[in-house]
Amino acid sequence: MSRIVYLNGTYLPEAEASVSVFDRGFLMADGVYEVVSVLDGKLIDFEGHMVRLKRSLSELQIANPLSDDEYLEAHRALLEKNGIGDGLVYLQVTRGNPGDRDFAYPAADVTPTVVMFTQSKPGLADNPAAKTGWRVIGVEDLRWGRRDIKTVQLLYPSMAKMEAKARGVDDAWMVEDGRVTEGTSNNAYIVKGGTIVTRELSNDILHGITRAAVLRFAAEAQMKVEERSFTIAEAQEADEAFVTSASAFVMPVVEIDGAKIGSGAPGPVAARLREIYIEESRKLGV
Amino acid sequence: MSRIVYLNGTYLPEAEASVSVFDRGFLMADGVYEVVSVLDGKLIDFEGHMVRLKRSLSELQIANPLSDDEYLEAHRALLEKNGIGDGLVYLQVTRGNPGDRDFAYPAADVTPTVVMFTQSKPGLADNPAAKTGWRVIGVEDLRWGRRDIKTVQLLYPSMAKMEAKARGVDDAWMVEDGRVTEGTSNNAYIVKGGTIVTRELSNDILHGITRAAVLRFAAEAQMKVEERSFTIAEAQEADEAFVTSASAFVMPVVEIDGAKIGSGAPGPVAARLREIYIEESRKLGV
Repeated sequence: MSRIVYLNGTYLPEAEASVSVFDRGFLMADGVYEVVSVLDGKLIDFEGHMVRLKRSLSELQIANPLSDDEYLEAHRALLEKNGIGDGLVYLQVTRGNPGDRDFAYPAADVTPTVVMFTQSKPGLADNPAAKTGWRVIGVEDLRWGRRDIKTVQLLYPSMAKMEAKARGVDDAWMVEDGRVTEGTSNNAYIVKGGTIVTRELSNDILHGITRAAVLRFAAEAQMKVEERSFTIAEAQEADEAFVTSASAFVMPVVEIDGAKIGSGAPGPVAARLREIYIEESRKLGV
Repeated sequence: MSRIVYLNGTYLPEAEASVSVFDRGFLMADGVYEVVSVLDGKLIDFEGHMVRLKRSLSELQIANPLSDDEYLEAHRALLEKNGIGDGLVYLQVTRGNPGDRDFAYPAADVTPTVVMFTQSKPGLADNPAAKTGWRVIGVEDLRWGRRDIKTVQLLYPSMAKMEAKARGVDDAWMVEDGRVTEGTSNNAYIVKGGTIVTRELSNDILHGITRAAVLRFAAEAQMKVEERSFTIAEAQEADEAFVTSASAFVMPVVEIDGAKIGSGAPGPVAARLREIYIEESRKLGV
């Protein structure tokens, strides 16, 4: 089955969705992206993703080519055209195609490139991995210094994911100056003595939209949250660990670098947060 | 005038040279590149660029899709089809288009994408900037940790170039832990008391092909070379400064962060190395 893809205002079969080799997204990784989850045909945390998209574009001085309403309309059109109940909408905006390669940004009248496509994932909220949890390894964080901007410079996270795969586990937690930054495409948490610990926001990590929602729900449920960094050793001694992302929601982590976390099974805090997040998301989805 | 571009074995007008939005070069910056200079229709340091290309591909576990002879044939065909006397050939290889987005690498049978195009630069060796020299600023080096691999993750160098432009100068020297790594797309050097100083090779900098050739020529000319890092302050106190790259050859630097280097005019060592490099390159070009 061929998907219908959005490309610069047009809906077309995925095989026809192509960009110029001179697009700065292709030549220079000069672009940003967002991934919005879909449950029962509803977009989860759509507004949060739009806020972050606009911040990423603004940090890179890329003009935002569409209004929130236009992004929303395109997301909904893709869901409908591709019959998506549960899944994802991927959105990428690049600085566009100036017609030749140059380190300097092109003139302001070069239109950004906008691509959106869907991934169908029936039963996304019932991912069986949530019952058993992920096993992760620690790897050095070699990414650039502006991880708060959600750019398409994903080569290192991809390499880390492959390293995890090669070592027979599910994901990698990246470590800088001895402290965990985040997973390859998710924010990382530990739970100790009832307190949820996750790294504070800075340029060192992505400002996760799911992270913000989960911390809000945790506060509403009277759970204690500490925003600070932690080491792999501290994580291995924790009662629980988990990650959050738009597509994994809240995913328990049960092993880090071969050491079982707590009992080695998903813990109650992660399970409860997952339940709340999915329940609230279904209610708030648009 | 429309260029003829090479794309996966085909020569086609640049307006038709496009890649799938699912190409990992576009979605994840999962690709590497080389730029080969052309003088009088001859390719400069072609073999060195091929050696580095193969190393970059190998570090990323991307299969090299073409033989050196095939790359050479395509380079020559592009020069001929586009009537290039002086200029550049840009070559990019990505991990290809697996048909969907995934952090994990695709199956080994996904063919890498190969793009090559030319840029015509008549009088490339007579760049008038070499007579006046570049002015540069120091900026923090925020790039990823594997700068020895020549990937298309060029967003930060591009941002640094724009910062330089905004401050009315020609380029930026990136600084990490207080010491200069390199320019936005060139290796950096200072000259003090007759000794040429340039940072030693490591994962922190690109292993410049022009750098290797220039250091070889410098040794042959009995010039003293020290491979070690230096600070902006040390550079400001130097007798001379310059950069090397495939397209700028040897380019004098006459000002760093507002401080004049030496007399504020291009120095004799840079001028001599530029002369030797261009002369030898013309002889050795293929």
